[in-house]
Amino acid sequence: MECSIKEDWLAEEVDRRGQILDAAFEEFSTKGFKGATIKSIAGAAGLQSPALIYWYFPDKEALFDAVLHTHAPLRTTVDDPASMMDRPPEEVLPEIARAYFATVNNPVSQRMMKLLVGEAMRRPGLADMLGRATAAKVLGFLKQYLSRQVELGRLRPHDVRSGARAFVGMLIPQAAGKIVFPALREDDLTDEEHLKTAIGIFLEGLRPKD
Amino acid sequence: MECSIKEDWLAEEVDRRGQILDAAFEEFSTKGFKGATIKSIAGAAGLQSPALIYWYFPDKEALFDAVLHTHAPLRTTVDDPASMMDRPPEEVLPEIARAYFATVNNPVSQRMMKLLVGEAMRRPGLADMLGRATAAKVLGFLKQYLSRQVELGRLRPHDVRSGARAFVGMLIPQAAGKIVFPALREDDLTDEEHLKTAIGIFLEGLRPKD
Repeated sequence: MECSIKEDWLAEEVDRRGQILDAAFEEFSTKGFKGATIKSIAGAAGLQSPALIYWYFPDKEALFDAVLHTHAPLRTTVDDPASMMDRPPEEVLPEIARAYFATVNNPVSQRMMKLLVGEAMRRPGLADMLGRATAAKVLGFLKQYLSRQVELGRLRPHDVRSGARAFVGMLIPQAAGKIVFPALREDDLTDEEHLKTAIGIFLEGLRPKD
Repeated sequence: MECSIKEDWLAEEVDRRGQILDAAFEEFSTKGFKGATIKSIAGAAGLQSPALIYWYFPDKEALFDAVLHTHAPLRTTVDDPASMMDRPPEEVLPEIARAYFATVNNPVSQRMMKLLVGEAMRRPGLADMLGRATAAKVLGFLKQYLSRQVELGRLRPHDVRSGARAFVGMLIPQAAGKIVFPALREDDLTDEEHLKTAIGIFLEGLRPKD
């Protein structure tokens, strides 16, 4: 009996944490970081008191970070670096690109990115948090991954700080076309076409010399 | 005598157009597109009446476009495509990258980019104008340029829509580190280092097969 009560309690906890995350995502993606408050998030999550949120997250920043974590497939991909380190770039790089495009093509993520990037331009503190949770994390993973591939002799030695930026960067104009600059979509380049050509250039450019 | 009067008049015209552009740049870069008005720009330019601005620019959009034109070295570079078409990519691509970094490193341009990108996230009309005047224009030039280089046998045949995005994109994370995400600067990669490695990968990746 004791055991089953504990399990019920645990399931309820996980459930409530998930409820808070869902409500926070909804609030952040419609009101931005500043507009969403612990109080409004608690209300949206159907909690009796905003104080309950602090049981799960020390502050709004931590909650925001957890939301970014939950809703960025790319971030999830790079959160388990060990499993990817030894896999070949012909597999891993398209996987990362597809995960990135999946986020970029999701209308809810688009709305959130627009809101947060806009806000980040005015709020350096938010920009720093956002940069660390997303871009810096992905670049960090890629630097590690590219180094490992050089070590394995699959890519030629190069400055991996630059290699990581080049790889992520190549994908950005395609994303910008969806999120902010529709004019960039006018030449009808699909994500898969772009991914194939751009990753082809990148891998050919880093092929080990015989 | 008549001729000298005409020349004086012309010099004064050019001068006044320049004054308006300077004042507009100042206003747009401190107040954003929406915040800056024809009236406030006329005031900053020391004009007696806002109506004078319409003598030079049909509307605020046209004035904004002229300001973007004047203050984007990269845009100036690609405004004279004919002169660059036949020059080798080993020369032209670093030139474009340096022009881009020069803009990105200019504190006044940084302030303006932050403001306008932030505003563009909330105003689709402005985003479209901005996208066309900058990103789409640069990509358009690069597509033409890469096609010509393929034709000349200096680069291997590839989808130039993707090649253009890949090239411009590779430079973006370096720019993002300066403008919005300081965390990206923590690995101390300099512009010249990045440019050398990234363009190296790109050119090697597009080297014609023997």
